[in-house]
Amino acid sequence: MRPSGRNVSEMRPISIETGVTKHAEGSCLIKCGDTHVLCTATIDERVPPFLKNSGLGWVTAEYGMLPRATNTRMRREAKNGQSGRTQEIQRLIGRSLRAGVDRVALGERQITVDCDVIQADGGTRCASITGGWVALKLAVNKLMKAGDVISDPLIEPVAAVSCGIYGGQAVLDLDYPEDSEAGVDGNFVMLGNGQLVEAQMSAEGATFSRAQMDELMALAEKGVAELVAAQKAAVGA
Amino acid sequence: MRPSGRNVSEMRPISIETGVTKHAEGSCLIKCGDTHVLCTATIDERVPPFLKNSGLGWVTAEYGMLPRATNTRMRREAKNGQSGRTQEIQRLIGRSLRAGVDRVALGERQITVDCDVIQADGGTRCASITGGWVALKLAVNKLMKAGDVISDPLIEPVAAVSCGIYGGQAVLDLDYPEDSEAGVDGNFVMLGNGQLVEAQMSAEGATFSRAQMDELMALAEKGVAELVAAQKAAVGA
Amino acid sequence: MRPSGRNVSEMRPISIETGVTKHAEGSCLIKCGDTHVLCTATIDERVPPFLKNSGLGWVTAEYGMLPRATNTRMRREAKNGQSGRTQEIQRLIGRSLRAGVDRVALGERQITVDCDVIQADGGTRCASITGGWVALKLAVNKLMKAGDVISDPLIEPVAAVSCGIYGGQAVLDLDYPEDSEAGVDGNFVMLGNGQLVEAQMSAEGATFSRAQMDELMALAEKGVAELVAAQKAAVGA
Amino acid sequence: MRPSGRNVSEMRPISIETGVTKHAEGSCLIKCGDTHVLCTATIDERVPPFLKNSGLGWVTAEYGMLPRATNTRMRREAKNGQSGRTQEIQRLIGRSLRAGVDRVALGERQITVDCDVIQADGGTRCASITGGWVALKLAVNKLMKAGDVISDPLIEPVAAVSCGIYGGQAVLDLDYPEDSEAGVDGNFVMLGNGQLVEAQMSAEGATFSRAQMDELMALAEKGVAELVAAQKAAVGA
Amino acid sequence: MRPSGRNVSEMRPISIETGVTKHAEGSCLIKCGDTHVLCTATIDERVPPFLKNSGLGWVTAEYGMLPRATNTRMRREAKNGQSGRTQEIQRLIGRSLRAGVDRVALGERQITVDCDVIQADGGTRCASITGGWVALKLAVNKLMKAGDVISDPLIEPVAAVSCGIYGGQAVLDLDYPEDSEAGVDGNFVMLGNGQLVEAQMSAEGATFSRAQMDELMALAEKGVAELVAAQKAAVGA
Amino acid sequence: MRPSGRNVSEMRPISIETGVTKHAEGSCLIKCGDTHVLCTATIDERVPPFLKNSGLGWVTAEYGMLPRATNTRMRREAKNGQSGRTQEIQRLIGRSLRAGVDRVALGERQITVDCDVIQADGGTRCASITGGWVALKLAVNKLMKAGDVISDPLIEPVAAVSCGIYGGQAVLDLDYPEDSEAGVDGNFVMLGNGQLVEAQMSAEGATFSRAQMDELMALAEKGVAELVAAQKAAVGA
Repeated sequence: MRPSGRNVSEMRPISIETGVTKHAEGSCLIKCGDTHVLCTATIDERVPPFLKNSGLGWVTAEYGMLPRATNTRMRREAKNGQSGRTQEIQRLIGRSLRAGVDRVALGERQITVDCDVIQADGGTRCASITGGWVALKLAVNKLMKAGDVISDPLIEPVAAVSCGIYGGQAVLDLDYPEDSEAGVDGNFVMLGNGQLVEAQMSAEGATFSRAQMDELMALAEKGVAELVAAQKAAVGA
Repeated sequence: MRPSGRNVSEMRPISIETGVTKHAEGSCLIKCGDTHVLCTATIDERVPPFLKNSGLGWVTAEYGMLPRATNTRMRREAKNGQSGRTQEIQRLIGRSLRAGVDRVALGERQITVDCDVIQADGGTRCASITGGWVALKLAVNKLMKAGDVISDPLIEPVAAVSCGIYGGQAVLDLDYPEDSEAGVDGNFVMLGNGQLVEAQMSAEGATFSRAQMDELMALAEKGVAELVAAQKAAVGA
Repeated sequence: MRPSGRNVSEMRPISIETGVTKHAEGSCLIKCGDTHVLCTATIDERVPPFLKNSGLGWVTAEYGMLPRATNTRMRREAKNGQSGRTQEIQRLIGRSLRAGVDRVALGERQITVDCDVIQADGGTRCASITGGWVALKLAVNKLMKAGDVISDPLIEPVAAVSCGIYGGQAVLDLDYPEDSEAGVDGNFVMLGNGQLVEAQMSAEGATFSRAQMDELMALAEKGVAELVAAQKAAVGA
Repeated sequence: MRPSGRNVSEMRPISIETGVTKHAEGSCLIKCGDTHVLCTATIDERVPPFLKNSGLGWVTAEYGMLPRATNTRMRREAKNGQSGRTQEIQRLIGRSLRAGVDRVALGERQITVDCDVIQADGGTRCASITGGWVALKLAVNKLMKAGDVISDPLIEPVAAVSCGIYGGQAVLDLDYPEDSEAGVDGNFVMLGNGQLVEAQMSAEGATFSRAQMDELMALAEKGVAELVAAQKAAVGA
Repeated sequence: MRPSGRNVSEMRPISIETGVTKHAEGSCLIKCGDTHVLCTATIDERVPPFLKNSGLGWVTAEYGMLPRATNTRMRREAKNGQSGRTQEIQRLIGRSLRAGVDRVALGERQITVDCDVIQADGGTRCASITGGWVALKLAVNKLMKAGDVISDPLIEPVAAVSCGIYGGQAVLDLDYPEDSEAGVDGNFVMLGNGQLVEAQMSAEGATFSRAQMDELMALAEKGVAELVAAQKAAVGA
Repeated sequence: MRPSGRNVSEMRPISIETGVTKHAEGSCLIKCGDTHVLCTATIDERVPPFLKNSGLGWVTAEYGMLPRATNTRMRREAKNGQSGRTQEIQRLIGRSLRAGVDRVALGERQITVDCDVIQADGGTRCASITGGWVALKLAVNKLMKAGDVISDPLIEPVAAVSCGIYGGQAVLDLDYPEDSEAGVDGNFVMLGNGQLVEAQMSAEGATFSRAQMDELMALAEKGVAELVAAQKAAVGA
């Protein structure tokens, strides 16, 4: 039924390789099927102006896609400026990661998470959130090991998955062929404890009912649980 | 409990005045409490390049805010370019309005809906969708009266409302004082028949449960029903 | 003779409604016939860097037009940047308003006047100056009532009107059909006491004589007097 | 009385050297005292889109200033984009030159006049118009000599001069020390036959009377007559 | 002597992994020590306008660096536009690759080579050229296998290496610690047959003699020969 | 053989006129045949932020071309931003001039050298370096005369010349007809004492051998010696 032969509630294979770049304080290469995202976390002891002398930390994110990460080459954003879509995604990633952070415990410093899509096959924003949390966690571990941070500011993992109505049926973890055909698709960001951070369901040329919304939600809960297990394995928790 | 004294499921007063500018093919000034948005619809017989010779129409939207629509003056976007937030909102408005359009019936032409916020007090994107549909409807009526369009391409009204968790409680139709304090807020776009077009719930510095999500959803259904009644009254349907 | 049926020295109906937005320190909606401009004045206790510690105040202006203020929709400036025409107009508005301000009496603060054209039918820059002065005056009144300013820094009203050679004849207060046909058009900014602040006459595909210049000037004096009366009525002076 | 020792109606020395660059179809270096502007005219057989197949020609202008043309170095516009002032000036130059052109006689081609200020000492826009006309005339002569244009499309020379109120007195042809002190300054563009093309008088921190306006006008007529004589000598007419 | 312990004419370890992304027509990940560049080649059957109907092909390149490819995070170019340095590098890569292409044999199509630096440790432009040629070759092989191109348009491999004067001594293949200290550094682009395509030597705060130039040149020849061997091994030639 | 009739090692006539603008601290108009560049040097007592309190001076350069400096009119960079080529050239000029500067002796101040091409006929970057040094020297002389600088920070003149392979033969000082045909061209920047600052040789659609590189180098040494003699004569050294 699904182009990939998966059943409706089956995730793509997940792999998270950590420590992939020598410069970043935390890094990983996350692969959700054929979607590959390089995530790095950079610690900066300065915070944005609106947080100066507040005692609070900040986590922010930036997102990009290599021009040939996609099936047909896209124009390079460095030549054209970030699209509205890119800006929307990176705000979502930042907001999502902050939901899992105790900003007092982090202390007055900023961590910037860069999520760069090396290869795209649907679900890049979700993979960025899931992998971004791993990079963030590794950077925070470094701060704790150095004694710069005392109690772990990352209370719960943050992970995200997409679901959608494809061929009239609710399916989990859309790949690109599904995503480009689905009339309804949603992104769900959750904590490891099951609390919701963000739920977005959107129809293009279609609509959806309350019942369908509940089906998507249930699939998302299953998917996020699997992602959180992979995150924990990756960071050795 | 609420700063305005409203009860949790009470909407602000809604007013929709039509025909407010002499040039636009459709226009209205929508007031949701102290949020005032001027909506105009412009018919263009040319479609964007990707629809040339497709026989399909298009509806798109642009959004802006006057610099002193807000409590403190914002920088003018004409001097600084559209922010990511503005772009995200105008894509949402366009996507939402298209969900109620039979693009075959519209025929190969484009309607641009401009939503300009004259005064802001929370919920400007929802007011833009609700008022934008009225302007769109009036423009379509003009096309039908002229015989350029035969069967009404607007099957169902499209309306939107915000809800959020304020002071620990789910409330309907957030005004600015509530919006700036709410830990969770959501925007719900629905058709007149109750089908969902878009549901976005987002937490900043907080999270929410499945139960809370259901409460927000129920409030939204109540609010949209009231908005659709006001839309129908405004367009004389 | 004139498309509107007015005689050569007849102004369009003038209406100035004050207090039209709840946030701005001063505001009005000025209507010169079918040209409608929303003017707001914002007080800022900081001055631009070149005036720091000078004891002098500053008045500046910004100008914009909603995309469908005109007969055919214009591209939104927020997407394309301010045109040279827009910048030229807003510099003119600021310079004109400053001509009526005692900057010592105003004290070291800045007032920004935003003029946004809701509907255009010729003469938008003149309506912006005339309405902008009303918004400015209301903001200044607020400062005086609060005791932040002692003596009124607005010695004389500032108002502006356009004139032109249309069909070989000098006419007052051009509307759009006249403006687009006129070979010569001029904008005259004056104080309530008849002193000139700015006089600009410009020919496109035509020229004009000293005698014609004097005719335009005489019409402008008549028009400004009527505008100043309307301003005084609006601010209750 | 005047910093330069000139009397109130005395122009600075005028020099116009033609044929100063080997590539342009017409060129001159105009010197009005210490204000030096290099003017070139470029013939392009294509017209802007709005004139395609109209049979009408077009004349347009661009203006620039070398960074160290002024007493203190200005930022290079190529790094920062054209200022509003630059755009306003180049529109004025183009509009002024077109006033002296029979666009039917010119035929469907465009001439671009570039005015680049090598050294500035006040009155650069006026020198640009006066010198720009000379470059334009030389390019037109080339077209006529080649038989591409039959009857001379340049009926009358176009020249411009500034005047202002300096030290309470109306003076002709302001240099920079005067310009920076003058409360009122004006620019007057006229044809060789005395018709007016553009008259702009503007006050900064001051106002002016009708009588003063007439004084400025009279000075301008004297100045333009001298400039036209210099133009005619330069082009050998 | 050298921070890495290498001797003066010793290259860093070279590794070229091909076929690293599923979408691109040709791709490789080149590692020159700790400098890692992902190179992809995209075939486009359209050429730039200046080559339409010329029968000639085109090869162009774009270059980027992930923000945390470097020791301290750099600002993302998508947010700030491409720097002059980036533009200079990508023009060099394109020019260099074209030197090894028979554009008649390639036929009227364009190949775009994207070089994105995943991790930087000096010599990124040289690694981009060397790896870019491998991606280009793999894409061309695809065209030849499909019969779209008959005779191989890539006559000779193109490779590049940097050399510099470090600690008074000419050294081959600068890494970042050397590059940031070297008074003179050069980049040499050569064909597999030893012909030069580009030689750039540049001093910052220093100068160099003819004799030193010859020493750098000799080191470059040795380095390029090793790179060409690695290229041939990678593409199985 | 050469379009100009020059022999292969013959420079174009060189002329350097100093003191050509009244505002700049140093200035010259350099003519290398029909390539004319106006160079000005501006002294600024402030240095860029990275040099604050370092005791070191800075020399930087900017480069531009008037739109009709070339045979066909180019688009004005002020309207389109600086091209990558322009940025590359102005970085080269700045780097080259700094190679001849003792930045301690200059003291903590900045000199900006503006090189604006009035007329172009090949070799504009080289003429800019050669003329730029003269403007710089004159500005430094002013500082020394005023006692602001004690020992001359300009130890050696800096000059530059282009060479290339034209018609199979190495030739000195390419003019535009040669430059546009040459398969290989190079720019050589040297000090008065013969030390190299920068050597760039580049092939477009061709390659070159070590032997040809040596020939170009020998021609460059001859050319720079002649330029340095002209520089010394111009500054009276």
